[in-house]
Amino acid sequence: MLVIHMERGCKSLEVARVCGFLERKGCSLRVVGSFESPYIVSDGDEEVGNLILSLQGVKAVTPTKKPFPLASRETFPDDNVFNITEEIKIGGGDRLIMAGPCSVESRSQIIETAKGVKRSGANVLRGGAFKPRTNPYSFQGLGSEGIALMVEAKKETGLPIVTEIMSPEDLEWLEPHVDILQIGSRNMMNFSLLKAVGRTRKPVLLKRGMMATVDEWLQAAEYILAGGNHRVILCERGIRSFDKITRNTLDLSVVPLIKSLSHLPIIVDPSHGTGRKELIKPMSMAAIAAGADGLMIEVHPRPHEALSDGAQSLTLEEFQDLMGSVNKLCNALNEEVKTPCGLRIAM
Amino acid sequence: MLVIHMERGCKSLEVARVCGFLERKGCSLRVVGSFESPYIVSDGDEEVGNLILSLQGVKAVTPTKKPFPLASRETFPDDNVFNITEEIKIGGGDRLIMAGPCSVESRSQIIETAKGVKRSGANVLRGGAFKPRTNPYSFQGLGSEGIALMVEAKKETGLPIVTEIMSPEDLEWLEPHVDILQIGSRNMMNFSLLKAVGRTRKPVLLKRGMMATVDEWLQAAEYILAGGNHRVILCERGIRSFDKITRNTLDLSVVPLIKSLSHLPIIVDPSHGTGRKELIKPMSMAAIAAGADGLMIEVHPRPHEALSDGAQSLTLEEFQDLMGSVNKLCNALNEEVKTPCGLRIAM
Amino acid sequence: MLVIHMERGCKSLEVARVCGFLERKGCSLRVVGSFESPYIVSDGDEEVGNLILSLQGVKAVTPTKKPFPLASRETFPDDNVFNITEEIKIGGGDRLIMAGPCSVESRSQIIETAKGVKRSGANVLRGGAFKPRTNPYSFQGLGSEGIALMVEAKKETGLPIVTEIMSPEDLEWLEPHVDILQIGSRNMMNFSLLKAVGRTRKPVLLKRGMMATVDEWLQAAEYILAGGNHRVILCERGIRSFDKITRNTLDLSVVPLIKSLSHLPIIVDPSHGTGRKELIKPMSMAAIAAGADGLMIEVHPRPHEALSDGAQSLTLEEFQDLMGSVNKLCNALNEEVKTPCGLRIAM
Amino acid sequence: MLVIHMERGCKSLEVARVCGFLERKGCSLRVVGSFESPYIVSDGDEEVGNLILSLQGVKAVTPTKKPFPLASRETFPDDNVFNITEEIKIGGGDRLIMAGPCSVESRSQIIETAKGVKRSGANVLRGGAFKPRTNPYSFQGLGSEGIALMVEAKKETGLPIVTEIMSPEDLEWLEPHVDILQIGSRNMMNFSLLKAVGRTRKPVLLKRGMMATVDEWLQAAEYILAGGNHRVILCERGIRSFDKITRNTLDLSVVPLIKSLSHLPIIVDPSHGTGRKELIKPMSMAAIAAGADGLMIEVHPRPHEALSDGAQSLTLEEFQDLMGSVNKLCNALNEEVKTPCGLRIAM
Repeated sequence: MLVIHMERGCKSLEVARVCGFLERKGCSLRVVGSFESPYIVSDGDEEVGNLILSLQGVKAVTPTKKPFPLASRETFPDDNVFNITEEIKIGGGDRLIMAGPCSVESRSQIIETAKGVKRSGANVLRGGAFKPRTNPYSFQGLGSEGIALMVEAKKETGLPIVTEIMSPEDLEWLEPHVDILQIGSRNMMNFSLLKAVGRTRKPVLLKRGMMATVDEWLQAAEYILAGGNHRVILCERGIRSFDKITRNTLDLSVVPLIKSLSHLPIIVDPSHGTGRKELIKPMSMAAIAAGADGLMIEVHPRPHEALSDGAQSLTLEEFQDLMGSVNKLCNALNEEVKTPCGLRIAM
Repeated sequence: MLVIHMERGCKSLEVARVCGFLERKGCSLRVVGSFESPYIVSDGDEEVGNLILSLQGVKAVTPTKKPFPLASRETFPDDNVFNITEEIKIGGGDRLIMAGPCSVESRSQIIETAKGVKRSGANVLRGGAFKPRTNPYSFQGLGSEGIALMVEAKKETGLPIVTEIMSPEDLEWLEPHVDILQIGSRNMMNFSLLKAVGRTRKPVLLKRGMMATVDEWLQAAEYILAGGNHRVILCERGIRSFDKITRNTLDLSVVPLIKSLSHLPIIVDPSHGTGRKELIKPMSMAAIAAGADGLMIEVHPRPHEALSDGAQSLTLEEFQDLMGSVNKLCNALNEEVKTPCGLRIAM
Repeated sequence: MLVIHMERGCKSLEVARVCGFLERKGCSLRVVGSFESPYIVSDGDEEVGNLILSLQGVKAVTPTKKPFPLASRETFPDDNVFNITEEIKIGGGDRLIMAGPCSVESRSQIIETAKGVKRSGANVLRGGAFKPRTNPYSFQGLGSEGIALMVEAKKETGLPIVTEIMSPEDLEWLEPHVDILQIGSRNMMNFSLLKAVGRTRKPVLLKRGMMATVDEWLQAAEYILAGGNHRVILCERGIRSFDKITRNTLDLSVVPLIKSLSHLPIIVDPSHGTGRKELIKPMSMAAIAAGADGLMIEVHPRPHEALSDGAQSLTLEEFQDLMGSVNKLCNALNEEVKTPCGLRIAM
Repeated sequence: MLVIHMERGCKSLEVARVCGFLERKGCSLRVVGSFESPYIVSDGDEEVGNLILSLQGVKAVTPTKKPFPLASRETFPDDNVFNITEEIKIGGGDRLIMAGPCSVESRSQIIETAKGVKRSGANVLRGGAFKPRTNPYSFQGLGSEGIALMVEAKKETGLPIVTEIMSPEDLEWLEPHVDILQIGSRNMMNFSLLKAVGRTRKPVLLKRGMMATVDEWLQAAEYILAGGNHRVILCERGIRSFDKITRNTLDLSVVPLIKSLSHLPIIVDPSHGTGRKELIKPMSMAAIAAGADGLMIEVHPRPHEALSDGAQSLTLEEFQDLMGSVNKLCNALNEEVKTPCGLRIAM
């Protein structure tokens, strides 16, 4: 495949000429991104790529054999570092710590949690309002009321919020309220939803499907990138294996693997990844040591009262302890180990 | 949990009284189904169940520990035999043979296939218009144009049609045109979509997620049943395992297992289940011998020209040969082996 | 790789010349089989193969890219049909039904079982004397005493016996007593043991490892074939997957797959493959319909008293019922469906 | 189950009395360990345990529901810290770094590697002489000649050596030469071999089977402990999953999990665990951060010339770089993070 990088500020006529050229060559094409600096993805071969290089407005052409050309490091060699809010960045050494309850349950619960995790150093508040539950009779979340409570907690603490979106229909009203849209594990291959969030300009947290290969995961990210939304954060949350002693099998090797294959930032969710609160701290430490750009941690003021996922939630005190250790580890790594995963990997 | 079976033709006041009683006992409740014969699902215990039995309009109460009370054989001991069209039934010895191309590609392709598979004995035409593709740049199906061609093929042959729905937004316009709504493997846990098809009164073909347990699959079916739609057909299509020599690992043991746990009919898709056309016939035979209520087979007039899944598509001639063997096997089984899987299984 | 087929009755000097030629070409070589008709396996290329064809005593040379040259259908296109005893054959339409208890527990238990399964039509008696148990404190089998009881049951009924061997050290004394040596699932990659049974001239039943690919399984068979022992029977017994509702996931698609890739016979063990007695009959039917050359079924006169695997053992009456249905199915298949899996498959 | 701890220096008569008591109660029993301080494992219940406490020579009785009573932390709450040689310990903060080639290939190769890895800080030399190879025609190792070369490298460098044993027959001659006996992944359930190494007094490195649950792994360790050999080191080396982008899926969550369930030390092998040399350093860092007691790393002076596993071997320079980072991380962790996995976990 080819990724054709157009010049910043190129004219729409120049884009149209490239498209026309590709069409005459019988190649597929898709124009991606804003007017100032669009990309064109095509199935043309290297020969076509070389011819296109001479067209006006074309800055560069990257050929790639990867099925995720826009997500690939071959196309964009530098880390995709971007802002979540004006103050908060992910990538390039800045680690994003998302913490909060599995489900928003009440005003006091979410406000108490938000204040607590902020105090300990979290920089994003997580909380579920629409919950994808295996059983139709289980608590399905507070819905729009839950979102309102999240927004209130954001006002109180200043923490940006991340929450899961389960259906394209919810996007229009949900988008203005949240800072990061989360695609859950069970929806990683809900392509209608991927296309929908690709059309927004909000950062998207894309959890790995519990049965998804790395290759499929990056192609799911490609759906979003191909919609013109470049702010995608990957999140490893455990895969399904034959051993049921942990809820899922946290696959930390994807951290350096993704770093090699892609420019996208990747964080780790050891709460879902293990399902056992005793494992959350050591696996958080391991994730950071492996090079992760952040963590997503379930925290609840009183886990035994939680309506969902209590067994894998930390108390506020345990989260504070975790953050103490994580911060010391980050400092040690930043000083000593510059690029724990600087090598590139061929697929 | 409890399933409360109300009398056929019971009064809405009687339903309301049961609900009021459950609420006073602090139990959850959900009313399911049409006015003539509703069911109420509740988390009450057996003691509550016994008290409810004495209320007016209550016909029976079934306690169950299964997380899928409406899909469970404990609640409905008899096979759920139902009609697809006036002439075509599934269950109770009637086997449903769905055949057709992976994707609808052109008028001539779908008409030719429909006529061919009908001649060989298929009783439902399958065809994809909205295709869930791993890669955003792959052929995504003809969309609404594909549906129009399916409808045309239906008019030509009289075969009812089954096609995949990928988003709740498509339901309204799609529903009048198709006879069976298919939920694909990647969407088995798309709970928004499950709820949407649960509100329709069209039969639903629910494919097993490629990494879904039997328990999760039946709970996905429960989402549809709890919406009041009782016509759910399960479809085994292979799970993901460590061995990549076949596209998926076809898990035929679920056929007798589902028959024991549930009253729902189950069919088998050996095309996706193996991904190799050479294996389709023997695995079709095995599926029928294991007790399946039908098959779903990919057929294409010219598999090497197919835009998707050519490697696992039979030609019309191969399909005819398959049907010949399957019919002989069905006859032999109907005569000799009455209940290959008549035993019940405790989970 | 190359398989060089020497003429039946070729001279040892001719074999030596081929070996010398290969050595001079820098190729690996291994001489396999008896003096009358040896084979030589080498990593030479096709060019070397063509040169060798002109040497004296060479009957044919088969090049193959498969890592299991002697097990491959490319090398031996015809089914490997062989005798277990003078009367009993496997392959070519003759199905081998092995039945008996998981463990030999007492004289009366094994004799009663042997008589019962023979009456119902089994033609091999199975029984474990050395049991591979996950826990060191579990019943480990009666050992040599168990073998003595098996031999007694054989004398009483005339049924040949199959039992598991767990260590190369046991081979010398065990070999004269048993008719088929079983390699258990946990030992499929115990290469010392595979080499040991490759040196005997007893038929070997090679169970698939619970997490072995088809490719690895056929290479394990190749270890035995490369030792000069051609009588290898493969046995599918379920693989490990993420769903624990059955003990293992019975992978019946390997039946037609193995038939395509290899000339070796394959049987199916639905007892271990499902771990639930209610599933044994339907999965036995499915295995036969898929083309299996036989079955291995656990039978115990009183399953609830069994020291191991009671939950997956049939009573003698249930086994009789199973055999009735299986025989009718075999007859129907023999008449109607000549080659349910006659197609060849490329790996 | 019960573990009965006898007093150090108790009389054999006292042991005999406990055994007699258990027999009269109809309980199983197994005496484990040396005369000075034996243990008795029995299936007696807590009531029996209380009665035994009053018998002479009995120091303590630990009841447990775990199927691995001797490996359980319930029985021995303190870390099992032990010496490999007089100078080298594992556990209690001392980390064991085993490094060396997959296979011993030549005198110069093993000596050069031994000197190199020692210089960088490894404290054990690894090297395969008997190689378990999937294919019978692959290089199977130098055998006893390889052992001789390992012994020579040990003399040159002072590094203790670890090598794989594949058959009980090899134990007698192999034992005097090696410092740690390795049980490979494919033999984790070779119970004959586990029993054999349980009878020696050499430390055993027990690799996790690629398809083994944590529960099965600890029971395999129990086979060795029940033979009276307490020096067992567990080694995580990756499990088999559906994603083939890495050779295996390294399951680091077992590090804190094993620490909670058992007193045995655990190390990690990221070479086999990933199969990609680019991932070895980040996954080594992650393993240490998760609390591992050591690492096993494949190192080869010229990986591209290696007869096996070249793609996952580090050069001597890369190993030196790895050790630099690992040492800094160990220091940071030792200072700051006292017990990254100090919590206990219920199974």
